[in-house]
Amino acid sequence: MRLSNEQLAAFETEGFLFLPSVFTEDEIGVLNGELPGIFSQQRQENVREKGSESVRTTFAAHTFNEAFHRLGAHPRVIEPVRQILDGEVYMHQYKINGKAAFDGDVWQWHQDYGTWARDDLMPEPRAMNIAVFLDDVTEFNGPLVFIPRSHRQGKLNAGHDVKTTSYPLWTLDNSTVTQLAAEVGLVAPKGPKGSVLMFHCNLVHASPGNISPYSRTIVYLSLCEVGNHIRQFKRPEWIAHRDFEPIKSLTDDCLLALARGAAA
Amino acid sequence: MRLSNEQLAAFETEGFLFLPSVFTEDEIGVLNGELPGIFSQQRQENVREKGSESVRTTFAAHTFNEAFHRLGAHPRVIEPVRQILDGEVYMHQYKINGKAAFDGDVWQWHQDYGTWARDDLMPEPRAMNIAVFLDDVTEFNGPLVFIPRSHRQGKLNAGHDVKTTSYPLWTLDNSTVTQLAAEVGLVAPKGPKGSVLMFHCNLVHASPGNISPYSRTIVYLSLCEVGNHIRQFKRPEWIAHRDFEPIKSLTDDCLLALARGAAA
Repeated sequence: MRLSNEQLAAFETEGFLFLPSVFTEDEIGVLNGELPGIFSQQRQENVREKGSESVRTTFAAHTFNEAFHRLGAHPRVIEPVRQILDGEVYMHQYKINGKAAFDGDVWQWHQDYGTWARDDLMPEPRAMNIAVFLDDVTEFNGPLVFIPRSHRQGKLNAGHDVKTTSYPLWTLDNSTVTQLAAEVGLVAPKGPKGSVLMFHCNLVHASPGNISPYSRTIVYLSLCEVGNHIRQFKRPEWIAHRDFEPIKSLTDDCLLALARGAAA
Repeated sequence: MRLSNEQLAAFETEGFLFLPSVFTEDEIGVLNGELPGIFSQQRQENVREKGSESVRTTFAAHTFNEAFHRLGAHPRVIEPVRQILDGEVYMHQYKINGKAAFDGDVWQWHQDYGTWARDDLMPEPRAMNIAVFLDDVTEFNGPLVFIPRSHRQGKLNAGHDVKTTSYPLWTLDNSTVTQLAAEVGLVAPKGPKGSVLMFHCNLVHASPGNISPYSRTIVYLSLCEVGNHIRQFKRPEWIAHRDFEPIKSLTDDCLLALARGAAA
């Protein structure tokens, strides 16, 4: 899977790229089948919503679950990121954000690199997210909302919000968001489960709460060019990883092979 | 303004009817010009969001503001409701819901008649809402979300939620909402300021929080057929009105006439 020149140009201009139905229903089924078991575990990697038992984020599932390990080295996510970052990549952060039906809380306006730079001393924004939809993402279940082109602003001033949700975040103030959105508006890429959304680590984004009866689980792989690895180890290893070895892509059928192995 | 037979049939089947751009930009401008003055008043009719000074709801603005008084007797809102309810109507409740940019909180899943029946002893669901958009309503700023056809279920069981937001509401449980939505899905009518949204008082609805930089103010006129007036006066008069006299429609140009008068 190679991105075309048009796709590369669109990413550079807009700061994101949406690729519908990259994974099949069967492949997503392999991952979704693991979620109840993962979410039910009492472990530090499961951060729950304020005032509820719903899992907000599972960190580092690639380190303790084989299906999510394979997703984290899947050629359909690793290769396009390698192409954009133009080099070998390692896994800086791995999150399953299970925005539960009725319960999923907001993610405030932020840039991911804002946190990676401040908390982890990542030298440059040579890192990015690639998100894999495990549910259909619609206007109703809390889609990611982008301010297109905002990645061109570089790292913006931010404040450390430790109150709004159960997870601390370096967030942007309202006037910055208002000003950026006034120029280009907002975009919320939506699509069926199995779709993939790539976005620049300085792209300003947020997501609303999920009041709908439909869950909205998305896996976020935050990949970093290996030479750009983090310099400060303030956050736990299961949040900001310290294994800077380049990821070797697995084979294209690695998820279905796992299911076949389990069935055999 | 008369609803067609097709529109009446659609309302009966789906439980709502969306009418884009019923009011002009100039007419909406007259109303929006009053909002800062209304929201800044320290009065009991202004219910503010939890933990913020943003106004969640202004009650009864038709009783203390001339522009909103005129909207509450405007033929373009009164006549279609009279047509559907097939009789004279009075104002049961009048709300300006100012879902502020960044601050506007959710409205949980509920039926309006659930509250009117339980709190106010309104005998029958012969009452309904007509909503007037004072801002463009988009996917981003917390649109109203309906479960189409749910009004056919009649009054559903509900619990009194006094915790989630700053305003108490009789809300539906998650399993009821899940079951109803599984049959027909969700719909969020969106459109430019000046649009009008009519919906049955038993239609199940909710609205998400507003994380966007765009405010989303909607005026809700809750009109009731006069013979169906409430029997219990437990809630304050400025929330559930006790003037059951039929509303007499004003002239079609009543909002612009007010502006012309002010300019003169």
